[in-house]
Amino acid sequence: MKKHSLILAIVIVLSFAQSAVFAQTDTTFTGAKATLKSYNALYIINSNDDKRIRGTLRNMANALQDPRLAGKLHLELIAFGDGTAVYMKNSAYEPLLLALKAKGVILAQCNNTLRERKIDKAELFPFISFVPSGNGEIILRQYDGWAVVHP
Amino acid sequence: MKKHSLILAIVIVLSFAQSAVFAQTDTTFTGAKATLKSYNALYIINSNDDKRIRGTLRNMANALQDPRLAGKLHLELIAFGDGTAVYMKNSAYEPLLLALKAKGVILAQCNNTLRERKIDKAELFPFISFVPSGNGEIILRQYDGWAVVHP
Amino acid sequence: MKKHSLILAIVIVLSFAQSAVFAQTDTTFTGAKATLKSYNALYIINSNDDKRIRGTLRNMANALQDPRLAGKLHLELIAFGDGTAVYMKNSAYEPLLLALKAKGVILAQCNNTLRERKIDKAELFPFISFVPSGNGEIILRQYDGWAVVHP
Repeated sequence: MKKHSLILAIVIVLSFAQSAVFAQTDTTFTGAKATLKSYNALYIINSNDDKRIRGTLRNMANALQDPRLAGKLHLELIAFGDGTAVYMKNSAYEPLLLALKAKGVILAQCNNTLRERKIDKAELFPFISFVPSGNGEIILRQYDGWAVVHP
Repeated sequence: MKKHSLILAIVIVLSFAQSAVFAQTDTTFTGAKATLKSYNALYIINSNDDKRIRGTLRNMANALQDPRLAGKLHLELIAFGDGTAVYMKNSAYEPLLLALKAKGVILAQCNNTLRERKIDKAELFPFISFVPSGNGEIILRQYDGWAVVHP
Repeated sequence: MKKHSLILAIVIVLSFAQSAVFAQTDTTFTGAKATLKSYNALYIINSNDDKRIRGTLRNMANALQDPRLAGKLHLELIAFGDGTAVYMKNSAYEPLLLALKAKGVILAQCNNTLRERKIDKAELFPFISFVPSGNGEIILRQYDGWAVVHP
């Protein structure tokens, strides 16, 4: 009987302890959970403001390092309008772009902007890809189920 | 027979009236319809501009009061980068934040920004939650099926 | 026999040419693919900055002309807050708006903003539609599966 009482007491204590843990888990919000094996996100840059460009590139690096997404996240950067500045050969962003490219990031430029602004592809870094329009890319990627981030 | 004719006449008139109502409904666009029982949305703030911060908080209150969404909408606010200003203890946003929190809004801060800018959690309002990175949160919430709004 | 050899030669040359085209297509990223029959996108304007307004309207026209989406894309523009400027009768945007409307674009205004700023509907162009709140529209359209673009 003593043994049974002891077991009963342990069960009661454990169930209380579990409730306490559950209560703590419920009251402390620590962010969304990553339950899938892979994630895709399209980042948008359409400004030539140096702070915004650097912020966007840093945000991409941060997303790749988020412990919830590390090793599961594939990124694409689409530049259009004034944002084309990020890919111009005379810009200072080459090392930041190459660091992202080394992590598998696709660097894409809107062809529409090049045509409207009479910019030759040769004026951009040689490691850039081209898409028909930045806006089409944004719409299609959302339909592909990608997350879209415009910092 | 007269009675039947009367009923027939009423039916004809009513069906015409219904067509008229349908025609009016079809030609007048009054916005998307809320057909689900619950909705989730993540709001983003990454600017310390007072007008933008107040605009974002007002937008959240407006979304909660939209007659299509009232009582069905759950919100989260994620602050990162310069947007961390909204949660700093010395800021003027406490009453606006507490009003949102009273309506069930989760107020979340990016840990990455705190680390990069050497901001201690104790410098923020005590009712804030923390997530590994704001960008990870934006990506994961979209995969969770949430709407994401960056006003 | 000569005839057969000629045909064979042509087939060989054509298949090589095709391989070359495929090789180029495979190694060069050219953007997301449009595999569906129709697409919907909501564009957002909440700024009265002339450059941003014109940029948003131009972006919409560009998306409609993207060869991947041409003839498949249906657009809605939602204006709220300062963005209401785009629909004011005294503005210069009427021809641009009418050009979009002629392509089937829904032009929608947030009623909430009109109430908050005491703007009468009669002050806006007569071809505008109204929705309860711009923020509600943004959330509901994402749940409808629409792409949302905030240039």
